[in-house]
Amino acid sequence: MLKKSTAAFMVIAALLCGSLLTLAVTGSLFSGQAAGESASTVLTSSGLAQSEAKKLGTALGLIESKYYQSVDRSKLINGAVNGMMEALGDPYSNYMAKETAEKFEESIEGSFTGIGAEVASDNGKVVVVSPIKGSPAEKAGIQAKDIIVSVNGVSLEGMDLNDAVAKIRGPKGSTAVLVIRRGGSAQSLTFNIRRDNVTLETVYSSMEKNGVGVIEITQFSMNTAARFKEELSKLEKKGLKGLVIDVRNDPGGVLPVVIDIAEQFVPKGKTIVQVEDKDKQRDRQISKGSGKDYPVAVLMNKGSASASEILAGALQQSAGAKLIGDNSFGKGTVQTSFDKELGDGSLLKITIAKWLTPNGTWIHGKGIKPDIAVAQPDYFSVAPIDKRAPLQYNSNSTNVKSAQTMLDGLGYKPGRKDGYFDTGTKDAVKKFQSAAKLKVTGIIDVKTAEALEAALIKAIQNPANDNQRNRGIEEIRKEIGAKASNS
Amino acid sequence: MLKKSTAAFMVIAALLCGSLLTLAVTGSLFSGQAAGESASTVLTSSGLAQSEAKKLGTALGLIESKYYQSVDRSKLINGAVNGMMEALGDPYSNYMAKETAEKFEESIEGSFTGIGAEVASDNGKVVVVSPIKGSPAEKAGIQAKDIIVSVNGVSLEGMDLNDAVAKIRGPKGSTAVLVIRRGGSAQSLTFNIRRDNVTLETVYSSMEKNGVGVIEITQFSMNTAARFKEELSKLEKKGLKGLVIDVRNDPGGVLPVVIDIAEQFVPKGKTIVQVEDKDKQRDRQISKGSGKDYPVAVLMNKGSASASEILAGALQQSAGAKLIGDNSFGKGTVQTSFDKELGDGSLLKITIAKWLTPNGTWIHGKGIKPDIAVAQPDYFSVAPIDKRAPLQYNSNSTNVKSAQTMLDGLGYKPGRKDGYFDTGTKDAVKKFQSAAKLKVTGIIDVKTAEALEAALIKAIQNPANDNQRNRGIEEIRKEIGAKASNS
Repeated sequence: MLKKSTAAFMVIAALLCGSLLTLAVTGSLFSGQAAGESASTVLTSSGLAQSEAKKLGTALGLIESKYYQSVDRSKLINGAVNGMMEALGDPYSNYMAKETAEKFEESIEGSFTGIGAEVASDNGKVVVVSPIKGSPAEKAGIQAKDIIVSVNGVSLEGMDLNDAVAKIRGPKGSTAVLVIRRGGSAQSLTFNIRRDNVTLETVYSSMEKNGVGVIEITQFSMNTAARFKEELSKLEKKGLKGLVIDVRNDPGGVLPVVIDIAEQFVPKGKTIVQVEDKDKQRDRQISKGSGKDYPVAVLMNKGSASASEILAGALQQSAGAKLIGDNSFGKGTVQTSFDKELGDGSLLKITIAKWLTPNGTWIHGKGIKPDIAVAQPDYFSVAPIDKRAPLQYNSNSTNVKSAQTMLDGLGYKPGRKDGYFDTGTKDAVKKFQSAAKLKVTGIIDVKTAEALEAALIKAIQNPANDNQRNRGIEEIRKEIGAKASNS
Repeated sequence: MLKKSTAAFMVIAALLCGSLLTLAVTGSLFSGQAAGESASTVLTSSGLAQSEAKKLGTALGLIESKYYQSVDRSKLINGAVNGMMEALGDPYSNYMAKETAEKFEESIEGSFTGIGAEVASDNGKVVVVSPIKGSPAEKAGIQAKDIIVSVNGVSLEGMDLNDAVAKIRGPKGSTAVLVIRRGGSAQSLTFNIRRDNVTLETVYSSMEKNGVGVIEITQFSMNTAARFKEELSKLEKKGLKGLVIDVRNDPGGVLPVVIDIAEQFVPKGKTIVQVEDKDKQRDRQISKGSGKDYPVAVLMNKGSASASEILAGALQQSAGAKLIGDNSFGKGTVQTSFDKELGDGSLLKITIAKWLTPNGTWIHGKGIKPDIAVAQPDYFSVAPIDKRAPLQYNSNSTNVKSAQTMLDGLGYKPGRKDGYFDTGTKDAVKKFQSAAKLKVTGIIDVKTAEALEAALIKAIQNPANDNQRNRGIEEIRKEIGAKASNS
């Protein structure tokens, strides 16, 4: 399976973005005493002290009777629970009302109910990037580049991608009627697709030259370890000589899953991760695996958080892997979600422990430094050009800066990249226009800006320009070579 | 008394900044039914329904027993009350813990306990702007421009202004030992000052040429109406022929106070303001005053909020006053603070009503449009220059943009103000350097940047450059003239 481009949105990812920055434990690893035990005051049956219940009740009553608009009492109670969590000052301890809780749990599970089509937004149109393997969408015959015109009679034209995804998804067993436009055909196709459980793909692998394999992990969901082993085994059967594991922009996931994956590489008896509870008791997770005899490197960046950092730390400190890319995010805590206790479908995600790397470092707020720092080209993160006014000689703005960064990234050497449109920039624009078969004016009008952006997206999607990936593969090749000459 | 410059910080204002954006009612104007009455579920003695108390108690217990760090239970309860208020989605309904509540009430009262010196921060030094009239600081002989070196043995050098103010303030009757440096003298002076109640000055007046008076109101505190009437009466005795009321950057204050002030100008029987409660009942505040026979204008800007907007609306719609300056802030609600109910010194400030202008407009979120829009010069809001690197020909940055705006404001015509340092900018820098008796290089080094900023501050403080104030005075002069020629 091919590595997915960063430009594509997963149907589920579009809905879940942001909620997954967690490191969940699923009950078995830790247990705690019953709630409310440690309060020293006289408690009511609810677990609140009399004075606490009185303060909360008085506030609730005042708001309800005095506020100038009508008030939803349950919103106030949810607000109160939310406020308690916020008082902790920990961004990873959160209250989630029922709807958010459901999405969160889907993301942890790595599955959802829908049709299973990865979609992206293209000029206001919802376009299929690819149907997920084995999903209802694939079985029905949905193809990459199909444009989804409408769902159950509702047009998706111009709709926000998240809203469109919400229309396509739905409960298991329900039917989505999709009107599709395919190729340049004027005639549309209609598909009746029954929604079902769809397992989210979180592992992608490829085999590069000289036996170097690359496995990308997009998040650590419940099924990710099994999928990882599957892909790893495929690569090994193809004669894997060295492996690059890519956890860039991987926000984390489930703790036992990352331990399971790390165990494939950390030799028996060595530490994968240490977990320190509130009483400062440390629990060392020791590998029962046997290690690998081929070299491993980990690609990471500032979007690699939590479980990704556990993997990077474990493989660096206990399996001799090199870390390549940018400094990682820096989240060194473990959360559990309590989803039954509140009794109404809402849940509390609470930070219950710190985790430390095998050598006992707490990377929280600092991240992990790569062994080999490799930056992506600056045009990977350039802002788009505001096309409402043309840019020309003597213009000076952040739009010119974007255009200069794009021109430079595409090899047209504008000279300066600080936003001032000088003669060097003008010459570069002319060269680009000539190469792109546009009218050569030296002025960045709408057409030129669009052509620049299109050329840039191609450049970003071209693996040849992925500095970090290239360096990872190169390092592994070197290590394979060194090993071969030693043996 | 002279109008205070915008650059100065009031001792109290430095501590209260931001908390005053309110429109308080002090008990008499509105009454409501008892708290908690409207809940339809079975309530416990605290006013919470069983299910509510259970949810809150469970969350509290889970956090306390599971969170990875120790937890202050009272912080969680305060967080819960805070969370209820935030659930309203109203930025003006807030929970304030005891300390914040005390500061808030001081700001409403318009008095505090301290020594009564208005101070500013100047290059890391705490400098007295002026002692407040009749305050302990004035009685002890503290003078403008005194540098406060230390308070009770603690050096203020390099301290944040808010922290320094907190050191200077203290309970009534306590003593502050101030070490002062005055003039260029190497010897320091020591003052033992007994802290006392200090009334904050909120009203400043001046008489301009041709009988035009200007009264500035900085906020509407409990004593502001009395002070306003005092200053107005002084001006009238001096032969006032027309009045400019300046409520620019006045964040508001107490509702009955602004009604009292508006009543000086709104003729008997006309509406000052309408207040609409949660049941959509409107209460019209009708003037019992007699109006004035001289013209009135109100200066306002985007910092004029709440009570300032009530005054502007009342005087425009019911007293024929012209509004001059920028669009106002747009806060159309009334709050009451409930400071006894929670029983622990904390308070709830709750929005209890909307207010409408005399003709029934709700200006919330929109503000009031001036009759005559007058902008201040752009250099009034320019950012300071980062002096770590010199700026010179072909530089391109926001620092250059600041420098160009300053040069332009000072009359040196750099040509462009977009951040690109061209030959026009270079010529302007040379002219400025020559006038400021600096080495003429055309390069903005530290000395040139400092000289530019010093010249700019002088320009901002010069009333001749206050476009809005000038226009206000001019309009009133015209109206006085028109009236005279009609009579």
